[in-house]
Amino acid sequence: MSLLVVGSVAFDSVKTPFGEAEEVLGGSATYFSVAASFFTPISLVAVVGEDFPQKEIDFLKSRKIDTDGLERAKGKTFRWKGEYGFQLNEAKTLDTQLNVLQTFWPKLPEKYKNIDIVFLGNIDPDLQREVLQQVAKPKLVALDTMNFWISSKKNSLIKTLGLVDILIINDGEARQLSDETNLVKAARKIQAMGPKTLIIKRGEYGALLFSKKNIFHAPAYPLENVFDPTGAGDSFAGGFMGYLAKTRKFDDANIRRAIIMGSVLASYNVEDFSLRRFRKLKYPEITKRFKAFKTLTHFDTV
Amino acid sequence: MSLLVVGSVAFDSVKTPFGEAEEVLGGSATYFSVAASFFTPISLVAVVGEDFPQKEIDFLKSRKIDTDGLERAKGKTFRWKGEYGFQLNEAKTLDTQLNVLQTFWPKLPEKYKNIDIVFLGNIDPDLQREVLQQVAKPKLVALDTMNFWISSKKNSLIKTLGLVDILIINDGEARQLSDETNLVKAARKIQAMGPKTLIIKRGEYGALLFSKKNIFHAPAYPLENVFDPTGAGDSFAGGFMGYLAKTRKFDDANIRRAIIMGSVLASYNVEDFSLRRFRKLKYPEITKRFKAFKTLTHFDTV
Repeated sequence: MSLLVVGSVAFDSVKTPFGEAEEVLGGSATYFSVAASFFTPISLVAVVGEDFPQKEIDFLKSRKIDTDGLERAKGKTFRWKGEYGFQLNEAKTLDTQLNVLQTFWPKLPEKYKNIDIVFLGNIDPDLQREVLQQVAKPKLVALDTMNFWISSKKNSLIKTLGLVDILIINDGEARQLSDETNLVKAARKIQAMGPKTLIIKRGEYGALLFSKKNIFHAPAYPLENVFDPTGAGDSFAGGFMGYLAKTRKFDDANIRRAIIMGSVLASYNVEDFSLRRFRKLKYPEITKRFKAFKTLTHFDTV
Repeated sequence: MSLLVVGSVAFDSVKTPFGEAEEVLGGSATYFSVAASFFTPISLVAVVGEDFPQKEIDFLKSRKIDTDGLERAKGKTFRWKGEYGFQLNEAKTLDTQLNVLQTFWPKLPEKYKNIDIVFLGNIDPDLQREVLQQVAKPKLVALDTMNFWISSKKNSLIKTLGLVDILIINDGEARQLSDETNLVKAARKIQAMGPKTLIIKRGEYGALLFSKKNIFHAPAYPLENVFDPTGAGDSFAGGFMGYLAKTRKFDDANIRRAIIMGSVLASYNVEDFSLRRFRKLKYPEITKRFKAFKTLTHFDTV
């Protein structure tokens, strides 16, 4: 069964202390789709401009990503330009050109409408609901958002949150959304808004899962060389949702494993610029690092 | 078998967004000793002034802490005053009065000299070596230090590091000591200075263990109410070393468990000001939270 994702496809220009990349493939839905494609077929809903090259569409197709929902609109593809300091923890946005994203109105191809696992990537919460209304019987809906929507469209976002099962945001966004400094208190408040499952990403410090019953902590993989953190959060979400779509079990134990899979994909993604690491990543490497996460976190109780 | 600790005993005045405490019992060796005392008898080497009340000495004694090495010197006890913001991650030091610490020269009582597990708390690295020379046959030596000694006495510190098995520092100190931003690279450099086992504390983000073979990550316990982080690092070290002294196994599996025990003690300590939480803490609570750490980190590989 396929996994539906809506989000952005972009060209990024990124500079880190370890190098730079100009006009390379990026965007939240791109990172998400390619990460998830290691586990399951993907149905992509997004928009690109007339300048988007066929070879990148061919690349997506080669990853079993259905691009029938990838609209080609008049104008230029969305562009983002950013820079990271030595800490690599937060990008400084230098330039954003929305271009075709400005008038994007997601329309699902007929064949997508029976997909029951949906990831609403970081777009306008009105559009997220719009996508959801086009899906017949969603079984599992997860959502990502960002500080921009929390501050500019909080009411619409809260309305959307009432419709989702899983929310994936970072710690700053969780604090902003809940008006609570303490993350445990923040999580309780956010869960009360709708999503029974909340995943709070903490960048280089990993992620926390708040479910109905308990809390799970996944560390980030300690890497000796991080080249570019762009797309780490989207790769995490892709690995996480891809694994859930493949295994189709949504209990606590499987969600924990899915979070580790998300962390594995994120850890590979940051090893190179753009999607370069994913382009050569092989499934056995994923299995290997999943086991390394076990070594990283395991202790015996006796 | 006892565990020897040298460090500071102090009176702290602490303000956090959740309250304040004036002239309360504090100091690195105090937090360390009381945390470790849940596992093993302690032999304390430190100095207090004429103003140090008998009731606090009685408290330490009640915790099976041998105070024969606690020197009472002419003058006042060391005092520290600090304040925390809402993030609770770093104290702003408002005042430090070294008092009797200024002329402290650790002298071990004869009966301490055969103790074989030693924790050199955060004092002048010259004095740390001085203590070590008074111990006949140390089997396991761990050390704590701080930014002040790394910048002002780096050569002496490196000399001391050559004599220890385990170094426990925070991430900022690890970066400062190694001149490396990346923690994995920093760890390799520091391990090459002597300590085969390195524990890097990351406050609310937990701790990383770098051993010869692999890396272990322990999260901090997600608490709904943190009142005062003062002494968290020392309580961590105390729980860690206390458990090692009790179990007397220094292999990777036991060091991992010891790190979780350290995290348990740190998590309780921050629930109240000064050592208040420890004064009423019972051993079954420690066992209970140790299990909670398992729930927090466990995932099945299949």
